[in-house]
Amino acid sequence: MQDELLLYPHPSVTIDCVVFGYDGEQLSILLLNRRDEPFANQWTLPGGFLRLEETFEEAAQRILKDKTGIENLFLEQLYTFGGLSRDPRGRVLSVAYYALVNPAKYQLMVGQMANELRWFHWKLLPPLGFDHEHIAQVAQARLAAKIQYQPIGFELLNAQFTMSELQALHECILGESLDRRNFHKRMMASGLLRSTGERREGLKSRPAELFEFIP
Amino acid sequence: MQDELLLYPHPSVTIDCVVFGYDGEQLSILLLNRRDEPFANQWTLPGGFLRLEETFEEAAQRILKDKTGIENLFLEQLYTFGGLSRDPRGRVLSVAYYALVNPAKYQLMVGQMANELRWFHWKLLPPLGFDHEHIAQVAQARLAAKIQYQPIGFELLNAQFTMSELQALHECILGESLDRRNFHKRMMASGLLRSTGERREGLKSRPAELFEFIP
Repeated sequence: MQDELLLYPHPSVTIDCVVFGYDGEQLSILLLNRRDEPFANQWTLPGGFLRLEETFEEAAQRILKDKTGIENLFLEQLYTFGGLSRDPRGRVLSVAYYALVNPAKYQLMVGQMANELRWFHWKLLPPLGFDHEHIAQVAQARLAAKIQYQPIGFELLNAQFTMSELQALHECILGESLDRRNFHKRMMASGLLRSTGERREGLKSRPAELFEFIP
Repeated sequence: MQDELLLYPHPSVTIDCVVFGYDGEQLSILLLNRRDEPFANQWTLPGGFLRLEETFEEAAQRILKDKTGIENLFLEQLYTFGGLSRDPRGRVLSVAYYALVNPAKYQLMVGQMANELRWFHWKLLPPLGFDHEHIAQVAQARLAAKIQYQPIGFELLNAQFTMSELQALHECILGESLDRRNFHKRMMASGLLRSTGERREGLKSRPAELFEFIP
């Protein structure tokens, strides 16, 4: 039965990783400057070819480790991109994965196939190779949709956080300013978080109430 | 550069289609009884191999037309399944697409590679070949998540519908009963629909208020 598969032409399959960073102030994205063609010396998402013996998740972990030094990231599947002309080498599909991390927690290590790695501010992206700008946009839109309903910030904020810190995270991911009072009301109505009953002393302002996500 | 791709082993890629039906009373799913191995004489989702010269969407339309007679369906990408042992023939990835339609609007035509086509009640599925039971579950979960925030029923209900009709759709997709009063309140707060100001005469009950989705 194995031979039957040879009757069909096979596309190539890559895994591309959209790794967003949030450091408490801005949303960034991890890009790799390619050493080789196609798109040599241009910025792209870290990615690589899927091997027959590994799952998507295993491939994503291997590729990130080899190309960026980052290990054990919690990645979720974003979407599969299959445009006919997205890769000059031929028909190459990309199963894209994404994650949101605190960049300070990861030490980058430039792999053999890259000139450089860098966290770029989300609003100051360079031109990207392949269709990676489109993939990055889809990932940001997914993140923005998701943060409305799920507590996706909990690895990026301290266990206890102020409403201002949570709002800053939301504003960075959504790419827009939010009304403070409405945000507070919506968050408390969401059932995702609760007050800890404690306050953090501010330098100039009055002590800010501390919240935590409900496990 | 084309030759470079040959250095990498290539998985096979299929497109599988999860077509849900809603006829005003129950949620169903379109299944195909396979003529050939693997899984000969067993039920599966309609699917087929991706051709190099077509996009996922084109492949999905071609496969549905050839195997079920259904044309011009609005399909959305669900997820890509890449488990190592999901197909006995070797490494086969499945890019799954899904849709929700009114079965009465489509005439089924059994293609060459099938024994039979049938709409199965969602709660009475037969055992499925490949990992298609898992794919179907993921699709139902996606539909259930989506109906909370988007007016996905508008092709399935009449342009004007009663709140009971909308609730029946939601209950079928969610697979659970909903409280009538809460449902009404939540729907009106969603901003997705509005009252038409008209009422439909019931046979026994008092005339029911009619609603429409806000375009």
